[in-house]
Amino acid sequence: MIYNDSIVALATPSGAGAIAIIRVSGQNAIHIGASVFKSIKNKDLTQQKSHTLHLGHIIDNGKTLDEVLISIFKGPNSYTGENTIEISCHGSTYIQQQIIQLLLRKGCRMANAGEFTLRAFLNGKLDLSQAEAVADLISSDNEASHQIAMQQMRGGFSNEIAKLREELLNFASLIELELDFAEEDVEFADRTQFHELLNRIEFVLKRLIDSFAVGNVIKNGIPVAIVGEPNVGKSTLLNALLNEERAIVSDIAGTTRDTIEDELVINGIGFRFIDTAGIRETKDVVENIGIQKTFEKIEQAQVVLYLVDGVELMVDGALDKLLVVLNQTQNQYPQKPIVIIINKKDLISEKITLAIHEKLTTNNQQPTTLFISAKNKIGIDELKNTLISFVNTGALRNNETIVTNTRHYDSLLKALEEIQKVKFGLESNLSSDLMALDIKEALYHFGLITGQVTNDELLGNIFANFCIGK
Amino acid sequence: MIYNDSIVALATPSGAGAIAIIRVSGQNAIHIGASVFKSIKNKDLTQQKSHTLHLGHIIDNGKTLDEVLISIFKGPNSYTGENTIEISCHGSTYIQQQIIQLLLRKGCRMANAGEFTLRAFLNGKLDLSQAEAVADLISSDNEASHQIAMQQMRGGFSNEIAKLREELLNFASLIELELDFAEEDVEFADRTQFHELLNRIEFVLKRLIDSFAVGNVIKNGIPVAIVGEPNVGKSTLLNALLNEERAIVSDIAGTTRDTIEDELVINGIGFRFIDTAGIRETKDVVENIGIQKTFEKIEQAQVVLYLVDGVELMVDGALDKLLVVLNQTQNQYPQKPIVIIINKKDLISEKITLAIHEKLTTNNQQPTTLFISAKNKIGIDELKNTLISFVNTGALRNNETIVTNTRHYDSLLKALEEIQKVKFGLESNLSSDLMALDIKEALYHFGLITGQVTNDELLGNIFANFCIGK
Repeated sequence: MIYNDSIVALATPSGAGAIAIIRVSGQNAIHIGASVFKSIKNKDLTQQKSHTLHLGHIIDNGKTLDEVLISIFKGPNSYTGENTIEISCHGSTYIQQQIIQLLLRKGCRMANAGEFTLRAFLNGKLDLSQAEAVADLISSDNEASHQIAMQQMRGGFSNEIAKLREELLNFASLIELELDFAEEDVEFADRTQFHELLNRIEFVLKRLIDSFAVGNVIKNGIPVAIVGEPNVGKSTLLNALLNEERAIVSDIAGTTRDTIEDELVINGIGFRFIDTAGIRETKDVVENIGIQKTFEKIEQAQVVLYLVDGVELMVDGALDKLLVVLNQTQNQYPQKPIVIIINKKDLISEKITLAIHEKLTTNNQQPTTLFISAKNKIGIDELKNTLISFVNTGALRNNETIVTNTRHYDSLLKALEEIQKVKFGLESNLSSDLMALDIKEALYHFGLITGQVTNDELLGNIFANFCIGK
Repeated sequence: MIYNDSIVALATPSGAGAIAIIRVSGQNAIHIGASVFKSIKNKDLTQQKSHTLHLGHIIDNGKTLDEVLISIFKGPNSYTGENTIEISCHGSTYIQQQIIQLLLRKGCRMANAGEFTLRAFLNGKLDLSQAEAVADLISSDNEASHQIAMQQMRGGFSNEIAKLREELLNFASLIELELDFAEEDVEFADRTQFHELLNRIEFVLKRLIDSFAVGNVIKNGIPVAIVGEPNVGKSTLLNALLNEERAIVSDIAGTTRDTIEDELVINGIGFRFIDTAGIRETKDVVENIGIQKTFEKIEQAQVVLYLVDGVELMVDGALDKLLVVLNQTQNQYPQKPIVIIINKKDLISEKITLAIHEKLTTNNQQPTTLFISAKNKIGIDELKNTLISFVNTGALRNNETIVTNTRHYDSLLKALEEIQKVKFGLESNLSSDLMALDIKEALYHFGLITGQVTNDELLGNIFANFCIGK
């Protein structure tokens, strides 16, 4: 154990509420708690069992600060692995402050961001990728990102990496052994089996690396651009998409979340609308957005919703003009899914609808075309289904490990590079000592992910992103 | 017990944090908890002791929602007096929502505001004034209001009322007894003792009623008006008063409170600056504030800080003009403490200072006069001490019961009225049956305070002001 001091922090969100939790962890946590606590039943806190709750008062210099419940967790059976108490007090900010100040005077120090989890890691309660998943779990705001973080926190990702590392380690030790017997020219490591293993590792690494594209997007929300001429109904469409979801959320009083205004969750997947501030702002500004600005938005988007005013399409030549712009867009971004959305469906005739549909289909390699009325909320569900269809959720459904963390992605890329070097070495009969170096490098990068290899700077960077109290 | 259903709510402040607490109370609370929980150690939640903590997972339809700790409290040894569980989950808003939605599907319903405390009251865990103190405790943001709420929650106020009520009840029953023997013309109730009791009750009621003035002010913050001509440094003074306090508060990361911008706590007493939005706004607006607007501010204030530019006072006739305004103000509000603050102390000579001081002292019945420099923060501590000196904190220091609740104040006033009627009746030899009616009325008003007399509307009004989850 590196730390001997006891740390304290507010563990619940700041602000007033019914209850607030103040967490203390460290060798002396229970004794410090006992020094400020008077149990209703006159119990000595230090003599109580782990995982028990005790009602009493926090006393500061003879004055009662609050009636509280104290939870006791004895190390190693606690989150941090150390002795821990959690003080459940009335949620006034004044009381929170007073109790924390009292605990500071009694020998605690304020916890740094993520320090409880850091201690959990240092005490072997979690590996590094599990610790990182804790922060992801707290910040996840939809089913998909929650599910990935949960899987990672429960060790899914770590296990996969650890298994590869172990197999590689086996071969590495055999090859090291060969080096010891270098003059006898023996081969302990079966080269065919080793080649097979390298192929398998390469395959898994590639799959994990590939999963980062979807993982990253799921973690941060899939960026969607709504583009189109001025006044075709972009903000109305955005509102139609967003409003319903909000109503559901605010159904549960007390848990209304501070969503980013223009984020939408469909089937548990988060979608993030790009530059929607502009959409919602004055029409004058929108007037000035030319084709170039539209391209900028498309650049950042994963999916493009191209909104068109159906009524305006009925004007002679309008449809052809649209096709030119669409072709231009699709040529520039051949990989980007574009959904053509014809708005004001209710104002155009069936005949025109068919004509538009036909022309769009034949001229444009069958892009997805939807007819909606943003104002009357017609076709919105269909649009949502279309959005979902663009997300590769196969991996999610199959419960495969998905990489969401840039640090992990980076280590995986480097590990792959080393594995490919080893493989090339093997294929070109490189000497064992040189191969051993590349294997060590690969093992190093695997170790960085789970924290078997670590350093203060790395830990500092990781835990600085946590909230205080976690 | 009136309710058989189980209620659920988020008990910690909304938003993301390390931990969130979801509270469930009701006969089936533990069974409902057990139905969504899988203990790490495969323990059956329903078979566990009260006041124990259990680590495990919340499972929704085979899917793990979160790793949580569940606290078990068995009725009547819980806050509400009913079976209660508290689920300590990761503080993501998504997880909070998912767990609450799951519990709703399992048969809980969303708790109304204050419903946990309402149940505690209905189950006899708290009387009504104690329940009200819980809400006060949570909203208190300084030492004085915290101390009063704490005292009330611990039953200080209830005890005082209950004692008076009991004594009155004794006499009432004796007088009722007399009515049964009306034809025999006996006196069971000693009229001299009864008169003494009424005097004592009257005395206590008057003291409690008087305490409301200070109690109300302490609860809501003492209103202070900073008035004065434009550009004399009002906003600079306000900043000088506020800044220091802020630095102290933000020292404790994670507990930075959402203070009302212009509230200041000195020695644990809250001061509230009136209409400071105006002070901080454009100078043009301030230019237009005439003497009438100033009077409006003074009207609402408990203490008036009259700020004057010391440099401008050096101009011939300025001091006399000031004296006219001051006299006018003091004549209109003879009871209101006014502190004359001469700003820009550093820019005026000692000689002028003395001259101003002398003139103000002789002409104005010795009002408190301070020389400060708001910009250089000279004299600010002296001003704070002056502000504190205006608050009658005697009662606070002597640990006397202080009434802070308008509802209690109202009932006390009505009880006093009835007691005085009884006393008058006694003095004018009113018949026992009529006196008995007045006594009943007085008892009724006492009962309203502690909740011995109650009705749904009253309860509804009281608990509607609570937060959900309390």
